Amino acid sequence: MNNKRIVLASRPAGWVGEDNFRFEDAPLPRPGDGEVLVKNLWLSLDPYMRGRMNDVKSYVPPVQIGAVMEGQTVGEVIESTHPGYKPGDKVLTRLGWQLYGCVRGDGEINKVDGDRAPLSYYVGVLGMPGLTAWFGLKEIGQPKPGETVVVSAASGAVGSVVGQLAKIRGCRAVGIAGGPAKCDYVVRELGFDACVDYKAGNLQRDLKEACPKGVDVYFENVGGEMTDVLLRVMNPFSRVIVCGLIAEYNTTEPYGVKMFRAILVNRIKVQGMIVFDWKDRYGEALKDLAAHVAAGRIKYRESVVEGIENAPKGFIALLKGQNFGKQLVKLA
Amino acid sequence: MNNKRIVLASRPAGWVGEDNFRFEDAPLPRPGDGEVLVKNLWLSLDPYMRGRMNDVKSYVPPVQIGAVMEGQTVGEVIESTHPGYKPGDKVLTRLGWQLYGCVRGDGEINKVDGDRAPLSYYVGVLGMPGLTAWFGLKEIGQPKPGETVVVSAASGAVGSVVGQLAKIRGCRAVGIAGGPAKCDYVVRELGFDACVDYKAGNLQRDLKEACPKGVDVYFENVGGEMTDVLLRVMNPFSRVIVCGLIAEYNTTEPYGVKMFRAILVNRIKVQGMIVFDWKDRYGEALKDLAAHVAAGRIKYRESVVEGIENAPKGFIALLKGQNFGKQLVKLA
Repeated sequence: MNNKRIVLASRPAGWVGEDNFRFEDAPLPRPGDGEVLVKNLWLSLDPYMRGRMNDVKSYVPPVQIGAVMEGQTVGEVIESTHPGYKPGDKVLTRLGWQLYGCVRGDGEINKVDGDRAPLSYYVGVLGMPGLTAWFGLKEIGQPKPGETVVVSAASGAVGSVVGQLAKIRGCRAVGIAGGPAKCDYVVRELGFDACVDYKAGNLQRDLKEACPKGVDVYFENVGGEMTDVLLRVMNPFSRVIVCGLIAEYNTTEPYGVKMFRAILVNRIKVQGMIVFDWKDRYGEALKDLAAHVAAGRIKYRESVVEGIENAPKGFIALLKGQNFGKQLVKLA
Repeated sequence: MNNKRIVLASRPAGWVGEDNFRFEDAPLPRPGDGEVLVKNLWLSLDPYMRGRMNDVKSYVPPVQIGAVMEGQTVGEVIESTHPGYKPGDKVLTRLGWQLYGCVRGDGEINKVDGDRAPLSYYVGVLGMPGLTAWFGLKEIGQPKPGETVVVSAASGAVGSVVGQLAKIRGCRAVGIAGGPAKCDYVVRELGFDACVDYKAGNLQRDLKEACPKGVDVYFENVGGEMTDVLLRVMNPFSRVIVCGLIAEYNTTEPYGVKMFRAILVNRIKVQGMIVFDWKDRYGEALKDLAAHVAAGRIKYRESVVEGIENAPKGFIALLKGQNFGKQLVKLA
């Protein structure tokens, strides 16, 4: 029984390529005192990982060259020297892009319940993406019934939850996604009121049509030119949640936002968010999300890549917007 | 007795010139039923007026070609057919760039008390600029004692009050101004902890030196490249009050803000403000400001141009940052 893992081989300049990663065989790690050996079952792929590949100061340090790529995983305990965990326990950890790993029992590990929801949901709608949608919309967006909420990357893990939560709150939910298939899914399956295809080339006109009363809340997952288009259609006293800037992650020169003046003229509030700032309140949000999922009020889809060796391919597809819903790697 | 006034002759493309204005003689206006005829004593010159010269949708409509330039004035009632006003009353109105004007007694007119403060203060520290500083800093900036507050255009009517209020609240107050004379004034007379001369060409380095603990609140009066420099030094969970963008007012192409990503990484809140959104609470702020001025805790300086015919010159000087403190035109 060997470990298999993906390490960062080199830092990308612009677009990520598969050559920025290296697949490695490694010996199975042994749990030290108070540690838990976990076999990973699901690896979550998320846009933020692109940031970790750069040698740039951010809210967390970058992945070092030669180190295992970071990421959340759901797995099963194989061996444990910590009294809180025993073989067979299902756990959420941050063991990264590998099949096995050890984690301190008092560290970043939490039990999850496979009977309450599919295990993969704990890195999706009942995990970081769902929590991001929940806190960003509620705490920064603060949408009131009847207001219009727009979310970019609307078919993705975060965006799909944002729009459905907006509907639950009595708002008009409008998505932005790439291509008719995604837009169709967002409206028909997720129940958004409308979805604009940014690839159609008329984003501003189409958004205006989809948002006859303007935009009160914009949940930003994309950035770049899209920010400028949205700032042009935001209402007075509207709110922008800056959650992700995926359009920026693979460029070497940052986009210059030209509509900064709109923030002044329309008294817009633009605020950045990172979900772990709300760590102390995850329980409250998860209870609410789980109830919505159980009742079918939040629908949820996954894109699954099989095998750790295909993680780079799945990640690049995610960055290019080729995924549909939450992007996962099935490890076992 | 004739009226004299300045009207908008043409819309500027880029920098304002004196030829964008026209000086006119006009007959003395006669008060209609319920109206008050006012002789203006002081005209306030403010950066926002530049925006009114453009034919662009903003929070208020632009000045029409041939119309009197808008602006706040302090004056004396000459004649009144409204029971609330009598000759000799001192009043704050929006009669614009002219010597005389009529206003409805139930319209935009408020009595002011020349015994409590010099009349000109009612368009300065005890008027719109002071209120802008007070609400922007308190309600959006929300500075806590010990935090660092930076304000651009620090020697100006708004900026000078922002920094002094920050000091009163127990913050480190750091100004940004153009040239050593202004910086010296900001530190020695106004009592800021430091002031950085942006004309010295090392804004980011000098700011870092002046703000050893980073920047928690930035009161933005300038915009353009300065926004990017500040976004580079803002702390996690910091706040930016977007109050004015004077660097943008005379350009035809808007500046592209490249550090938008910092808003996400550092969870910065960037919020636009316009003072009249707090109209209902002016009383509370004015009471506080008046007490600070009376006690000498807020110092205040004025730049005075004499005569209505010199208003365009004074306004252009203001836009170029040649003024020192509140820019006024003395009309009588």
